[in-house]
Amino acid sequence: MSQHPPERPHEPSGRAYAAAGVDLAARRAFAERLPELLARTRGPGVLADAGPFSGLFRVPVAGFREPVLAASADGIGTKVKLNAAAGRLDLCGADIVGHSVNDILTCGAKPLFFLDYIAGNGLTNEQKTALVRGVADACAAVGCALLGGETADMPDVYPPGEFDLAGFIVGIVERDRIIDGRSIAPGDVLIGLPSSGLHTNGYSLARRVLGLAVGEPLEETRRRLAERPPELGGETLGDALLRPHRAYLADLDPVLDRVKGIAHITGGGFPENLRRILPEGVTASIDTRAWEPLPIFRLIQARGRIVAEEMYEVFNMGIGMVIAVAPEDADPVAAALPEGAVIGRIEPWRGRPVELANLTP
Amino acid sequence: MSQHPPERPHEPSGRAYAAAGVDLAARRAFAERLPELLARTRGPGVLADAGPFSGLFRVPVAGFREPVLAASADGIGTKVKLNAAAGRLDLCGADIVGHSVNDILTCGAKPLFFLDYIAGNGLTNEQKTALVRGVADACAAVGCALLGGETADMPDVYPPGEFDLAGFIVGIVERDRIIDGRSIAPGDVLIGLPSSGLHTNGYSLARRVLGLAVGEPLEETRRRLAERPPELGGETLGDALLRPHRAYLADLDPVLDRVKGIAHITGGGFPENLRRILPEGVTASIDTRAWEPLPIFRLIQARGRIVAEEMYEVFNMGIGMVIAVAPEDADPVAAALPEGAVIGRIEPWRGRPVELANLTP
Repeated sequence: MSQHPPERPHEPSGRAYAAAGVDLAARRAFAERLPELLARTRGPGVLADAGPFSGLFRVPVAGFREPVLAASADGIGTKVKLNAAAGRLDLCGADIVGHSVNDILTCGAKPLFFLDYIAGNGLTNEQKTALVRGVADACAAVGCALLGGETADMPDVYPPGEFDLAGFIVGIVERDRIIDGRSIAPGDVLIGLPSSGLHTNGYSLARRVLGLAVGEPLEETRRRLAERPPELGGETLGDALLRPHRAYLADLDPVLDRVKGIAHITGGGFPENLRRILPEGVTASIDTRAWEPLPIFRLIQARGRIVAEEMYEVFNMGIGMVIAVAPEDADPVAAALPEGAVIGRIEPWRGRPVELANLTP
Repeated sequence: MSQHPPERPHEPSGRAYAAAGVDLAARRAFAERLPELLARTRGPGVLADAGPFSGLFRVPVAGFREPVLAASADGIGTKVKLNAAAGRLDLCGADIVGHSVNDILTCGAKPLFFLDYIAGNGLTNEQKTALVRGVADACAAVGCALLGGETADMPDVYPPGEFDLAGFIVGIVERDRIIDGRSIAPGDVLIGLPSSGLHTNGYSLARRVLGLAVGEPLEETRRRLAERPPELGGETLGDALLRPHRAYLADLDPVLDRVKGIAHITGGGFPENLRRILPEGVTASIDTRAWEPLPIFRLIQARGRIVAEEMYEVFNMGIGMVIAVAPEDADPVAAALPEGAVIGRIEPWRGRPVELANLTP
């Protein structure tokens, strides 16, 4: 079902379909709530959010010499299970939008519009609304239109109560302003920006290590999420694990013209994601002592007896984005990023693209 | 994991993550196959398919006065379960691309690029490759670039062996050529284009009625898919059910400038989808005798003892797209659409937006 508000309700009989687990009337009631949710994200580019079968967005080409669209598709992994267990579906939108905004930001693109895909089994209209409202709020916060989406009832594919959320973002960037890491060279400085937590990666591992939502009763998961392990300094496990993916658009926007490369630290951690933006012949050397990993990562590492190397290969460890700048730009860029920290340098090739220095096993 | 080929493989230890059901090495091996799959869809607009964190596509604004992007997000519903049971994951790509192409075609837009989202539990690299190859082939067939995507391993969210596939399409249309149904008026002629089968809607109902993939052993589902019910005239049930969603771009492209409105007959059937393109004050009257429903629908209706009204509210019944044209354009447009059939007319308001005439209960 496309997210389209029925202007003139039509009531189908729907008996057989309802018996098959698909309630058309409930779907219609949900669709009626959508226009209000989408409206707050509507900018001048939107000609039709959730039009009859597609959204329409006027390409903002004025002022561009050679506009390029940047697009990305993403999910938020098994974090959705924890959000569901904690009854915090409202947080998922910030996760998927934050992740998506950061992905296109790595090439210097700014978001134009977003579409969501929600599929599940037995989601109530309240849950669907919480999901879409979360997406809409997160879109509004970064000036991105929520142009449409799909909400699908998928009995049998998903177990009862389970769902998945995917997002698609389109942004725009001037062709000769695309950031691609090509000019990264030895001597360049790597600045890290703090993450808010795991963001949207490594949850399958974290959940197993922490005994969360892997087959045990829902009450047990909820009880554990409410625990306050001493390592977290008073915070609940749920708060630490569910904090949404941070979007770095506002932070990086003012310095984009002085940035050579941007790596979004997602699945694959530092080695996999930094490698993606490096040209041949250089090594990104990260000094792991340059920042203190967030307490949640210490907790996961200790409980799972995971070696440090793997922690940095799966998790962001407290750094959500890494930018590469020329040595002469390091001071002004760092000054514009008060939360940033110099976490490494580009070196001549040292045998591997990414080196994690000073790892404590 | 974004669909990015690792140019210089990095081998993480990955022990704990693998124990959590996520095999990074297998993911990497899959990623290495992607460039070849995506390459065949690459047109001049593609600057980077599956770039480091996002795809890049040059907006083809030359020749446009006021270019508008049309975007749509979709899934293919629980048809994925039948594709999996039949071992035909290669067909899913044509389904999601066909559905998406048609959705943006309803406003006159032609596809620029597509991104896929695949999530599941225990999909092998061969299965993932079959899915992405199917998407790429379908994209190539309609001149659309496969710009990237996401392939996520989601243990716990999906039961073992289950998966979901979503797609996201972006197309372009000249603003003053947008087809929106606004000028539809009494006297206009409705022409239907034949569907290939259920396309991607109504599978939850069809599967239940036909006893397919709803909890029974996989062998039983396979046995039933191989049956040749007399109603299907020699065809297997699997062939009839799995035939991919037809894309109507090539059919409608030559007549777009004479079309007032286009309805894609998807979930919600005739009433729900035709209603979307109608202005106030008119009724679309469909003569259900104007075409012969495909045999598969007769079979579903008989086996499920479903009333005719509900059949037309859930299924396309053999008509995948309906276009509205002015009376004077009916003959030339019909001549350009040899497979098309006049299936109804626009009438002055008759109390409901869509009327299904001559229904046999």
